[in-house]
Amino acid sequence: MRHTWTTKDFENLEKRQRAMFINSLSGAKSANLAGSVDIQGQTNLSMVSSCVHLGANPALMAMVIRPRAVSRHTMDNLEDTGFWTLNHITPQMARAAHQTSARYPKEVSEFEAVGFKPVYLNDFKAPFVDGAPVQIGLRFLRKILIQENDTELVIGQIEQVHFDGEHLLKDGSLSLARTGTVAVTGLDHYHELKSLFRLSYAKPDKELSELDI
Amino acid sequence: MRHTWTTKDFENLEKRQRAMFINSLSGAKSANLAGSVDIQGQTNLSMVSSCVHLGANPALMAMVIRPRAVSRHTMDNLEDTGFWTLNHITPQMARAAHQTSARYPKEVSEFEAVGFKPVYLNDFKAPFVDGAPVQIGLRFLRKILIQENDTELVIGQIEQVHFDGEHLLKDGSLSLARTGTVAVTGLDHYHELKSLFRLSYAKPDKELSELDI
Repeated sequence: MRHTWTTKDFENLEKRQRAMFINSLSGAKSANLAGSVDIQGQTNLSMVSSCVHLGANPALMAMVIRPRAVSRHTMDNLEDTGFWTLNHITPQMARAAHQTSARYPKEVSEFEAVGFKPVYLNDFKAPFVDGAPVQIGLRFLRKILIQENDTELVIGQIEQVHFDGEHLLKDGSLSLARTGTVAVTGLDHYHELKSLFRLSYAKPDKELSELDI
Repeated sequence: MRHTWTTKDFENLEKRQRAMFINSLSGAKSANLAGSVDIQGQTNLSMVSSCVHLGANPALMAMVIRPRAVSRHTMDNLEDTGFWTLNHITPQMARAAHQTSARYPKEVSEFEAVGFKPVYLNDFKAPFVDGAPVQIGLRFLRKILIQENDTELVIGQIEQVHFDGEHLLKDGSLSLARTGTVAVTGLDHYHELKSLFRLSYAKPDKELSELDI
């Protein structure tokens, strides 16, 4: 049966149910581990499901951070040091990755608490997650306050990427079917990506063709 | 073999290859059809892979729109009328959905060109995609210029949602495994979501358990 819910219905939902419902609406979300370190060298790791591509030249990515979220420590660190990392997760990493969303005290490193190893690569100032198929190092550019609900859009420039050559396709894309990159929906539902097809650049009056995967 | 690419390497890539590579980095992306109409009643439909959840109360979503993108008509329409829709796509809808990204002239409705039917539901002022498993009606709140590359973050308030009761779980979430919602990676790679598990709310020193899917 088809349902129609409007603003009144959202407001009448119990808080947790509302969060569950509205979080489901945007569709598939990226699941990345954000790695950072404070100026004393204490590492931090948190799940981020709100990464979004901003542009390729310059190479920019953004993520949405909630006001009093656990990812607050990540936010403090990247503002203090100017750098953070984003790391793709595989199905084997998903449980431990989800566990980083627990509210650990500042003095506990989620790397250690959930069993990931921080690695420093190519002189980058923030820790990557050892074993992550795609490891991205970003420089913090600025944050934009979304005044409607006090969230912040954090903009970063991609300065380095570590990846396996066998995951790179001829046209320059990384095959996220090959990397095993996981998607998340809602607050807690993890999924593998099951490749359907790649489609050619669309033009009016031209038939789409399938590209190599 | 593990590769390390830095800013210099991105800059040395041919333009299309760079777009392919950098677009792969954020991970899984949502694949939604944005429906809109101009003040003369001409409908428009475009693929948007940059939707992101902003918050549940108020129910807010955002999307990133590129400066001279084909989605420019969507942008004009939602600013002129104040409303637009976002519609999930299934594997069966993905080819036609991708075709909406072709650069059709303003007087051509992508609904008609690719074979989707616009439907007006519950007095909402923008057209939904008939048959989409999840249909979301949004009111345009404002746009934020990302001056680093002239993209815009478009913020909308979710005013109504149409969905099937059988896709709603007891805890309030929509099962996007059940809706058949498709994910996209890079510029053109479409995927089904293959459910791994749902995990309980994470707390320090508490074992995660699996939730009903």
